[in-house]
Amino acid sequence: MPMRTPKLDGIYAPRDLRTMSLDQLKAVARELRSEVIDAVSRTGGHLGAGLGVVELTVALHHLFDTPNDVLVWDVGHQCYPHKILTGRRDQIRTLRQGGGLSGFTKRSESEYDPFGAAHASTSVSAALGFAVARDLQQRKNRVIAVIGDGALSGGMAYEALNNAGSTETPLIVILNDNAMSIAPPVGAMSSYLSRLISSARYRSLRDMALVMADKFPYAVERRLKQAEKYARGLVSGGTLFEELGFYYVGPIDGHNLDHLLPVLRNVRDAGNTGPVLVHVLTEKGKGYAPAEQSADKYHGVSSFDVATGTQVKAKAAAPSFTKVFGESLLVEARMDDRICAITAAMPSGTGVNIMSKVFPDRVFDVGIAEQHGVTFAAGLAADGMKPFAAIYSTFLQRAYDQIVHDVAIQELPVRFALDRAGLVGADGQTHAGAFDIAYLGCIPGFVLMAAADEGELAHMVRTAAAIDDGPCAFRYPRGTGFGVPVPERGEILPIGKGRILREGTSVALLSYGARLQEALSAAEELDSLGVSTTVADARFAKPLDEDLVRRLAREHEVLLTIEEGAVGGFGAHVLHFLATQGLLDRGLKVRPMVLPDRFLDQDKPQLQYDEAGLLARHIQATALDALQVQPSRGIREAP
Amino acid sequence: MPMRTPKLDGIYAPRDLRTMSLDQLKAVARELRSEVIDAVSRTGGHLGAGLGVVELTVALHHLFDTPNDVLVWDVGHQCYPHKILTGRRDQIRTLRQGGGLSGFTKRSESEYDPFGAAHASTSVSAALGFAVARDLQQRKNRVIAVIGDGALSGGMAYEALNNAGSTETPLIVILNDNAMSIAPPVGAMSSYLSRLISSARYRSLRDMALVMADKFPYAVERRLKQAEKYARGLVSGGTLFEELGFYYVGPIDGHNLDHLLPVLRNVRDAGNTGPVLVHVLTEKGKGYAPAEQSADKYHGVSSFDVATGTQVKAKAAAPSFTKVFGESLLVEARMDDRICAITAAMPSGTGVNIMSKVFPDRVFDVGIAEQHGVTFAAGLAADGMKPFAAIYSTFLQRAYDQIVHDVAIQELPVRFALDRAGLVGADGQTHAGAFDIAYLGCIPGFVLMAAADEGELAHMVRTAAAIDDGPCAFRYPRGTGFGVPVPERGEILPIGKGRILREGTSVALLSYGARLQEALSAAEELDSLGVSTTVADARFAKPLDEDLVRRLAREHEVLLTIEEGAVGGFGAHVLHFLATQGLLDRGLKVRPMVLPDRFLDQDKPQLQYDEAGLLARHIQATALDALQVQPSRGIREAP
Repeated sequence: MPMRTPKLDGIYAPRDLRTMSLDQLKAVARELRSEVIDAVSRTGGHLGAGLGVVELTVALHHLFDTPNDVLVWDVGHQCYPHKILTGRRDQIRTLRQGGGLSGFTKRSESEYDPFGAAHASTSVSAALGFAVARDLQQRKNRVIAVIGDGALSGGMAYEALNNAGSTETPLIVILNDNAMSIAPPVGAMSSYLSRLISSARYRSLRDMALVMADKFPYAVERRLKQAEKYARGLVSGGTLFEELGFYYVGPIDGHNLDHLLPVLRNVRDAGNTGPVLVHVLTEKGKGYAPAEQSADKYHGVSSFDVATGTQVKAKAAAPSFTKVFGESLLVEARMDDRICAITAAMPSGTGVNIMSKVFPDRVFDVGIAEQHGVTFAAGLAADGMKPFAAIYSTFLQRAYDQIVHDVAIQELPVRFALDRAGLVGADGQTHAGAFDIAYLGCIPGFVLMAAADEGELAHMVRTAAAIDDGPCAFRYPRGTGFGVPVPERGEILPIGKGRILREGTSVALLSYGARLQEALSAAEELDSLGVSTTVADARFAKPLDEDLVRRLAREHEVLLTIEEGAVGGFGAHVLHFLATQGLLDRGLKVRPMVLPDRFLDQDKPQLQYDEAGLLARHIQATALDALQVQPSRGIREAP
Repeated sequence: MPMRTPKLDGIYAPRDLRTMSLDQLKAVARELRSEVIDAVSRTGGHLGAGLGVVELTVALHHLFDTPNDVLVWDVGHQCYPHKILTGRRDQIRTLRQGGGLSGFTKRSESEYDPFGAAHASTSVSAALGFAVARDLQQRKNRVIAVIGDGALSGGMAYEALNNAGSTETPLIVILNDNAMSIAPPVGAMSSYLSRLISSARYRSLRDMALVMADKFPYAVERRLKQAEKYARGLVSGGTLFEELGFYYVGPIDGHNLDHLLPVLRNVRDAGNTGPVLVHVLTEKGKGYAPAEQSADKYHGVSSFDVATGTQVKAKAAAPSFTKVFGESLLVEARMDDRICAITAAMPSGTGVNIMSKVFPDRVFDVGIAEQHGVTFAAGLAADGMKPFAAIYSTFLQRAYDQIVHDVAIQELPVRFALDRAGLVGADGQTHAGAFDIAYLGCIPGFVLMAAADEGELAHMVRTAAAIDDGPCAFRYPRGTGFGVPVPERGEILPIGKGRILREGTSVALLSYGARLQEALSAAEELDSLGVSTTVADARFAKPLDEDLVRRLAREHEVLLTIEEGAVGGFGAHVLHFLATQGLLDRGLKVRPMVLPDRFLDQDKPQLQYDEAGLLARHIQATALDALQVQPSRGIREAP
């Protein structure tokens, strides 16, 4: 039975919402919720967050003059309802697909996305930038940031509140408090918000008028202005935000348009009142029973059956790299009670939940707080523990200075487990782990490893546990392994030593990481064309296996390096070594294969690798091109 | 007249303080202050911060069992009194000199420095690591972090408080509130602290006993315990910290040992009370009149005359790069009212104070908050402004993810002015700007420049102002320029084009940045040895001047790249280009010269360059070695 959405069908842009009545808006919200559920049931993606802000999204676009008024969504994964209302409904079933809509806000996609996001805690900083730019250009538009309570554990959100709170510039921050980040929230701020809510679960509209009467010229009921003292008492719960210079309004029910609309209207019309924080309570997954009843509120889902909520999970032939990491870590934790794990609000995403079930006291979720998490790990290491900081490659960018300043300079043995290294499919450019080899490779004293497959990953977890005289990192890709055997416990790899998988005489393929299978395929093809090919797995980018590189360079006409990372990484280290050793002086056809120097859009992983030029056929073509052989004929020409 | 320090002379380690009486400790504090002033008057360094914590340092080492009790100083530049009391007095006049004591805490220097620092806001994270490690290892030592109010504007400090405040682990955070970072503090937290202080300027000891009576079993006056309600009222000023899960004590006078000792003793003996925050008020520069009367409280000084406070400033032959940047920025700001500047608590260190004197509304000090600062700049850029984020190379590491996620992916024209790029002399390894070429070079879409001299810097400021379709960065070293002419307004350089300074036929020196003068000197020497040498200034690492590189590679036997940065930077980009273009296939003696792959200790700049191997004679030797020429004879041998 096709879904009927008569009200939503009439909305091509937010302006179509502006003249609607309360009842009409409620109908839009109902239909919008169904539309989101239906779309995500087909595409998969982030569901719970979007369902939590359906009414808020309708209210904001009804009341504010978007895109002239600037609306910045933190993280951006809650933006599917926003996309549907802002002219992108016809593409909503292309979410996260190649060539389709991004699963996050994206400037290049719509003027209604003034600032893209995908990592957390950025919205208040960006919104303050828009607010100040407006003031400098003497415009009058409003600026609104919507930030979740989870994102509020990120230090940059505090930095921004601290900065904004000391200005007089009008800025509206909506705290979308659903008491959930991806995992349940942690930290004192979260407890504070809980106390704040429990002390005043949903203010009545009358109460809210009292609260606002002393601040807003157009308060709902002006005549209550004399009740100022009472009003001030009501907001005492928001002291923390008030101390940071914000006028605090709330908490209000984020699913009740009867309350949302008058409160937000007053905030909108307040004039030059400086920064305001509106505390809105929402439920992640609201209005879809399977999501509401699920522990993770359907944070991120694959496609599913709407009636039952059953997700379509492809039967994986091999365990995910994440799971292999988590299980290998648990093995090490059983052997050594100094092993600890740190996650920044991603216990299941990183797989450390496997260890925390057995050793909850040695697994630490620090919140969306990578900076603190890394230096906390450094403190643990400085006092004799063996911490693993399990942080995605892309999120570890948040803690770069802490890696340099607190870990590397002090030679502290913090082990970095870098999941999602390389391209990440549907999560797109914002989540790609493209830079870690370069940004860690330039730091003195690091041991850097990349796992060619899930069996190698088990070895590297064991090896990392054993490295206790300085920092190390090991990277591994998103997704499932290749189906190779995984040892119950890995072996300690010789530091800085690679391995040769097949020996040839003409071309050498030196792979760093999980493109090794493609290198092996390419080698078979090359051999069949009469090009004798060596394949080696470097295992380590640092220290580099200099003997191996020297031997490959001396014994082959062509040397390719292959990695799933940006320029400046493994290939750069190999080239630097070759050059400084004079191994290029007499000529070597060396070709570093890296990710292209542009941000790659979301797509199926295989198509992304094609776009990146990192499939077997690209390796083969690069080798043949270096040899100046025509692939079609397979005949070697004179150089 | 030699200084007499009879009490201090008897202190070889903190244990010598433990049995001292109050009066003896006061005498130690007086002598310690004189000793700090005398030492810094000879070495130069950070003075104001250390003078502000003389009594606190004495109190902490008297009361706590250091190094068994863990004492972590935030930033570390206030640690000179701490170094004097912890067995390093005999080296204190080697501070910041080659081979001498570091100007910061440093693990490798003393067991009393359990965690080094030099960047701000890390101490609470590290201390929490030590506290949790203690709990896991079932030890009982105390852990104390001392953090300044300026450092509290850094997001990671909030992340750490937020995390620590949700634990039950005993942890003492001392907020050293001197209402100053390097510049006067900014932000709402700073205003909050001021209000907090003004509402209860210095509690009396009796008041403090009341405050603490309900929490601490060994409170100063137990009999006052019944006054609990009154006590709770007294601490209401600390609500913000209490909401974050800390027990708040204070404010107390940090220069009054009569108050400091009993309060800290109670906090020490409190047992399992969870995290406590002690708010201590101090004055930067306390006890040295010239410092107290100075605007910057003698934050960082050169050597000076103790009697007058007059600093010895070497007469500079040329303006500093910082000043040239600041003046060039002002020129651009006069021409275009969209030009803005952002600093993270370093208005004078970065030179943006020059612009802020004329255009205060367009210069933003966001506090020690680089993450927020960069995304705030991105927001400004997204709304049509032209922001310059002026952040030292080493501190920009704090904002790496924001550069990738908020600036580069969105192609926003934020201009990064990277002062202190390369080696930084006395500030040592923690402040070296070694990594920016690598960590920015791997990001798609950046324009990267390095200034060869102060005239080039003026061009690059103008060029950066003109680049309005994406991000760019330009780096320049610490210190004074070379005395070359600086144009009143720079010219717009052609993007991605270098320049040739002298033409030769055998060796090509391709410099990126301020080592150019050394390259020119090396070329003269090489020419005099009969080796015809080309010198080029790349100006851009990205986009690379491919025509120039190709030409240098084809027309010379030897190609050297020279940069003041770690492996993975400019040389890596040149090698990558050469390799992928097949320009190495027939042999090229290419030698990338980069900073060595280790953290270089503080020293005079010239000695650091010697250690790094980046002087003219190293360039010359590298070229001759590549040519296989004996430098002593200057005769070319057959290859």
